[in-house]
This record gives sequence, C-alpha cells and structure tokens, in this order.
Amino acid sequence: MNIQEIIAKKRDKKELTKEEIVYFVTNYTNGIIPDYQAAALTMAIYINGMNEEETTNLTLAMAHSGDILDLSGFGTVVDKHSTGGIGDKATLILAPIIASLGIPVAKMSGRGLGYTGGTIDKLESISGYQTNITIEEFRKNVGNIGISLMGQTLNLAPADKKLYALRDTIAATESIPLISSSIMSKKIAAGANKIVLDVTCGSGAFMKSLSQAIQLAETMKKIGELAKKETVCIITSMEEPLGESVGNSLEVIEAVQALRGKMAADVQEVVLTLGAYMIKLAGKGDNIEENKQKMLTQIQKGEAFQKLKELIQIQGGDISCIENLELLPKAKYVMPVLATEKGYVKTLDAKSVGEVSMYLGAGRMKKEDCIDPAVGIILKKKIGDYVREGEVLAYIHANSEEKGKEAINQLLNCYEIIEERIEKKSGILKVI
Amino acid sequence: MNIQEIIAKKRDKKELTKEEIVYFVTNYTNGIIPDYQAAALTMAIYINGMNEEETTNLTLAMAHSGDILDLSGFGTVVDKHSTGGIGDKATLILAPIIASLGIPVAKMSGRGLGYTGGTIDKLESISGYQTNITIEEFRKNVGNIGISLMGQTLNLAPADKKLYALRDTIAATESIPLISSSIMSKKIAAGANKIVLDVTCGSGAFMKSLSQAIQLAETMKKIGELAKKETVCIITSMEEPLGESVGNSLEVIEAVQALRGKMAADVQEVVLTLGAYMIKLAGKGDNIEENKQKMLTQIQKGEAFQKLKELIQIQGGDISCIENLELLPKAKYVMPVLATEKGYVKTLDAKSVGEVSMYLGAGRMKKEDCIDPAVGIILKKKIGDYVREGEVLAYIHANSEEKGKEAINQLLNCYEIIEERIEKKSGILKVI
Repeated sequence: MNIQEIIAKKRDKKELTKEEIVYFVTNYTNGIIPDYQAAALTMAIYINGMNEEETTNLTLAMAHSGDILDLSGFGTVVDKHSTGGIGDKATLILAPIIASLGIPVAKMSGRGLGYTGGTIDKLESISGYQTNITIEEFRKNVGNIGISLMGQTLNLAPADKKLYALRDTIAATESIPLISSSIMSKKIAAGANKIVLDVTCGSGAFMKSLSQAIQLAETMKKIGELAKKETVCIITSMEEPLGESVGNSLEVIEAVQALRGKMAADVQEVVLTLGAYMIKLAGKGDNIEENKQKMLTQIQKGEAFQKLKELIQIQGGDISCIENLELLPKAKYVMPVLATEKGYVKTLDAKSVGEVSMYLGAGRMKKEDCIDPAVGIILKKKIGDYVREGEVLAYIHANSEEKGKEAINQLLNCYEIIEERIEKKSGILKVI
Repeated sequence: MNIQEIIAKKRDKKELTKEEIVYFVTNYTNGIIPDYQAAALTMAIYINGMNEEETTNLTLAMAHSGDILDLSGFGTVVDKHSTGGIGDKATLILAPIIASLGIPVAKMSGRGLGYTGGTIDKLESISGYQTNITIEEFRKNVGNIGISLMGQTLNLAPADKKLYALRDTIAATESIPLISSSIMSKKIAAGANKIVLDVTCGSGAFMKSLSQAIQLAETMKKIGELAKKETVCIITSMEEPLGESVGNSLEVIEAVQALRGKMAADVQEVVLTLGAYMIKLAGKGDNIEENKQKMLTQIQKGEAFQKLKELIQIQGGDISCIENLELLPKAKYVMPVLATEKGYVKTLDAKSVGEVSMYLGAGRMKKEDCIDPAVGIILKKKIGDYVREGEVLAYIHANSEEKGKEAINQLLNCYEIIEERIEKKSGILKVI
C-alpha cells in the first residue's frame, strides 16, 4: 500500500478500503505522509466525495489517532455538540438541567475559533472557574455532583487537528464527509456513548441551506449507527442569533437568567428539544414532551440553577458572580442602537452580527488571540418584532468608545426592517 | 487575490483567469505558496480539467518563470520533441539530416528519467562529447555548422520543474492540461518558434489510447496556436519499441547505421514524417512526400552522416567512435534470447521491454542514478515477424551474467507468439 495509490483511487472516484484510510490517517498523524500528499487526497475527497462507510472509517481512524477518554464508569454518557452558531449558549443552560435529573454530564470542550468564544471561554468569565483541571478531578467531579465541564487537555483526535488546519488553508472546509468525520471523531474520542447534535443551518452556520444541513445530519447519524454510538441530530435555524446576547459574560448572564426561569422563547425551544432527546438517549424517558416538562420542572424547582452553582463551586469559581450578575466582567460603554425606521424586523443576519461581535473583541481569529469577556451585543428586537423609529434595537457593550460607535453602524446594517408583518418561525427545522 | 480563492474556483469547476494562473505560478516558483496548496490546486485541475485558454495561460506562465533562450539570430527555429518512448532514437537521426538541409537545429535537452537515458545521455556514450557547453559555445556551434545538441544549463521553466516533481508524488501525472502545459512550457522557454511533436501512444507511452493521444495532441496544437508557436503533432505508435535497439550506445549505433543508409522500416517512417513536417514549418517545402525524399537524398549523399560527424567533433567527441562502432562502450555479455515456440509475433510489449532495459541498468529512476551506456537489448523479431522455435528473438547486452540471464526470462515474457499471421501496421497513427 502506498499513498499515491490511495490518492489515485479517490481521484478516480473509487471507494477507499478501511485499511487504506487507516494507513493514511496513521501515517499523516505521525508525519510520514507530508502535507502536500494529504492536501491532494483531501481535495480529491472534497470533489469526489466519500460514502457512509468510508466516512465512518475516516471518523474512527481519526478518533483512534490519539487518546480516548474512558467514561465507562459513569454508565451511559450522552454528549451534546453544536456545529456552531452565534449567541449559542445552549450548553450552559442544558448541562445543569440534565445533570440535575441525575444524568451524568462529562463534557470536554475545545476553545472556539469564531465570533464569540466557546463554552469554556464563556465559563472563564466567572472569576476563578478552572477549565484546565486534571482528568482525575474531572472524573471526581462527575462522580460527586454528576457534572463537569473542562477544557480539552488530552490529546484527542490529533489527526483531526492536523487535517482541520490543513483543510482551512486549501479551501476544503465545506465538505460533508470531512465536516462530519471531524465532529464525530472528536465526540467519540471524548468518550461519548450517545450523541445529540445541534446541526445549525442558515447565515450564521457552516451549512447555509436546509438540504445541506439534512445531508450533514444524515451522514453523522449514519456514522453514529456504524460506529455504534447512537446519534440524534436536531437541525436548528441560525438565520438570526440564538437568544438575546452575543458575547461571553453576556451569554453567561443570559444562561443564568434562563436557569432562574427567564428564558427567551427561541432559546427555550432549542434547549428543551436538545435536552429531551438527551434524556431519551440516556434511557430516562421516551416521551419527548414529557421530557421537556421534566426539564421545565427542574428550572422551576431551582434544581437546575443549584446544579450550576455546584459546578462552579467545585471547579473553583466564585458563585457570588452568578448570584449577583453585576460582579461578572462588564464593558465600559453600553450604547443603544436606535432604529432609524419603523416596521417589522425581516432579517437580523446572524453572520453579520457575529462579525460585529468579533470586531468588538468577543471572538478570536487565531488560537493565540485573547478574547475580551465583557464585550458583545444585547439584541432587543429580533425577526418578527415590531419596532418604532428611535426605539432601541440593541445595545452594544464595548470597551472602546470608538469601536462602540463603529459597531452601532455595523449592527444597524444587520437589520432589515420592512412594512409588512413577518411571522416568527420555529427554530427547530427537523429532527433526524 | 489569494490562493484559497483560486483553489476554491477550480474545486468548483470554474475557469481561472490569466491573472490567477500567473499569481499561482509566480508565487509557487518563489516559494510563497507552499507545496500543500499547490497540491490541492493541482488535484482540482486534474479532476475538473482546464480549458484551452487556461492551459495556454498556465503554459506561458511556466515558460516565463525562468530564463527564455533567445534564438532569434537564427531565423525560424523548429524544435522537435517526443512525449517519450522505448528505443526512441529519432532525434539522433533527424537532427543531422535537418541540419544538413540548412535548417538550424539548436536543441537543449533534459536528461530523461525512464527506461533508457535521454538524447543527451545517449550522446555521452561517445567518448569526449560535451553536453554541458556554455550558451555562447552553443550559439557559436549553431552559427558555424548549423547544429548543436546540449544539456539543459539555463534555468528553463523552473515552475514546471517544481510542479512536475510534485505531480509525481500526488498521483497527478496523467492529466492532459498538466502534461501539455509541461511540455509546451519547456519548448517555449527553449526558444522554439515552431514545434513538431511526436505524441507517442500505446503501452510504452504516457497516452495508452489513441483517443487520449489525440486529445493531448489537439491541446498542444491549440496552445501553440494561442501562444503563436505553430505546432504540428504526429501521433506515433508505441505498442512495441521503435527500431531494433533499446539502450544508450546501442541506440547510437542504430542511429549511425541509419545515417549510413541502413534504417529499420519503422524508424524510417517516423523519422521521415517528423522531419518532413519540420522542413515544412521551417518554410523549406510544403510537399510532405517531396520533403521525405529530400531527407533520403541527404542520407544517400552522405551529407547527413557528415553533419553528425561535424556535430560530434565540434562538441569535443571522438569521431573515430562512430566511424568504427566497435569503439563505443560495449557490454561484457551478449546473450541470445531464443524462441521457445514458433509462430507470428503478436505482441512485443514496449513498457515491459523498457522495464528489462531499466533492470539491465540503461535507465534511471531518480535524478542521481547513474546509467550504464553499454547495456540494453537488440530486438531481432518484432510484431508481425515469423519466428521458428529456437530462433533468435533478441540479444541481451548485459554487464552482469546473472542480470543477463534474468533479463532473458523477462524479455521472453514481453513476446506473445501465436499461430495466425499478423500484419505489420503503420507507426504513424495521425497527423494533427
């Protein structure tokens, strides 16, 4: 077997065997196959595709290219992952609710590259919260309180890490087999038994159209089936940001308020649906509507918020920050964005809002970049809302007056306001 | 403009502009674009193709990536090039004939990677022949005697050199736009005004089928037209080796004998056809059959052989070697290959004969390999010939008895002998 023959097969639209895929992944990870051969194969995969079996073999080979987190001591662990969105604080709300129901949540997250930080970055808005704990502490926390959220310390799926960085430089990101194997390999390496995926769709997501999102979801579900990791995909809309806030501490605030019972309708729809399927996969209830009700009850009883406090405390965080949200990092300037016309919000372009958030300093372009936990955007008007001229559309939270002013103009351009009434749509597009 | 966008366009089957192609070639040559991005683009070109305009722009960009040999002082210079074959000594015979007709031959050749050496390697079988002369000597020789054949010293088409080496490692060799731009860029950089191409076709050639060969020929002819370098392509058969000999000094011997009037029919057909079109392109005669006759006359009058002697003498070679062919490098062992059955030769697989030649040491796999000028094969029976059991099919010229014996077995496997009579076919398949 040699890499030229493998490239030639995929170049000629032939199916690669498991052995060929393992050969490639192993030798690319250990540096024997150079980047230029991997680039040629990746481009051939991008153009000629991979069937479900090949994609599963690629997923498993990448999952096994490094450490596999062993969570077998905790019974069935259901992992949750989102393909990425603007204002997506679902994990922060979902994880404590699920854990409060006695279902273990043991989640290792990477830091995001994108318009805001990842879940780990958001948690670090809370003074003292340790995301870089040891695996032993992680296990101990899950054992003691049923939940731990930490940063990725193990060498999980290093093949994916290499290939992901390469794909970025050779215009080979938007490929269903490559995206799905990348996501699923990390989930499998992170020790999940079952997986609930939030497959976002629309302007602010990787997948721009519903048909693409369905294709990605079906591929990942099939990988899950072949890899014996039961998977449910919820396709959610990412035409506009999720919820009210976009940023890091701003999203923590929204999550805390949600767990205290004040949750935006779109966030609630997504959180309850994802959670209901997590409960189902964990074997704790087959009825989705009943599962949603259980989750709401956990919020009403204060159990979910209590679980968040336990999590923060056990990982060294200052719980006074979430008891008194004024103690979280705050931006120097809070500037209203005022509507220049009246009418109904037709568009609130998620990607463009993400770019404003990035401009303010809430995200990072490169791994080395620092994020500013305090800055971001609070959206007071969303698609379907009526707005009067001069009414507040949103607030910019900035640490520089100049940037704040510029962000106001940028954010105004994210809104399209028209005369005709617009209906709000459901954020759940499909369950696969 | 950036390379990711260029890769994405070709990935999506879009046409690249001249500016994009120049950007890629320039920045790949100077090392700004790394191999992995070039590999991804090359694979996208391989799979999605390039139209004639793109291919021409790639050709010209590669031709202008280094030095361009200026031959303007010599009037119309017609270059001849073969896409490669086994036993192809056409240049050695053709160049002196053409020069003897007063048409300048100024040819810079690379060393071949393949089953035998290139023309330059073959000429080095002649004691003293200098292939690494200076450009000034090269010009002076063309001025004085109308011919010079030298090795490539100028930095011709360095982009092609880099891309060619890369293609070899990523299974991207057999692509019409990539092969044709590689060949044509070198010819243009080598100063040709007009070009006659021997496009070989069959087992021993890059192009295995006639339809592929026609496609390559038409592409190169079109590039010639767009680049204002009139080009004629002669598609020739490479099912069996050309002529009797395969090796280096063995091919020099066959060439000398041809120029002395004893030329194998298949060699004569190819040499006269290529030469007749060279004469036509040089503006020295429009009638192909008359041109062939002129060439034969030059051989009969001894003018062509005389020109070869002048060439060898002016470049420091020992002409006694070609007056007495016994003085050329000779192998220690000459071993007959005897037919094990009677009948007609149906197949004499060119590629397999080439592999025997390589095994004996006549070729090189890597640039650094040394070739043995003495070894090779003399084929006494070719396709269509009748052979009795025990009759000599061929002779192996080896410098190791063991290798010679093994080569006998290998060569026997190159022959297929059947009972039914087989017709000899023309070696000229098409003129484009």
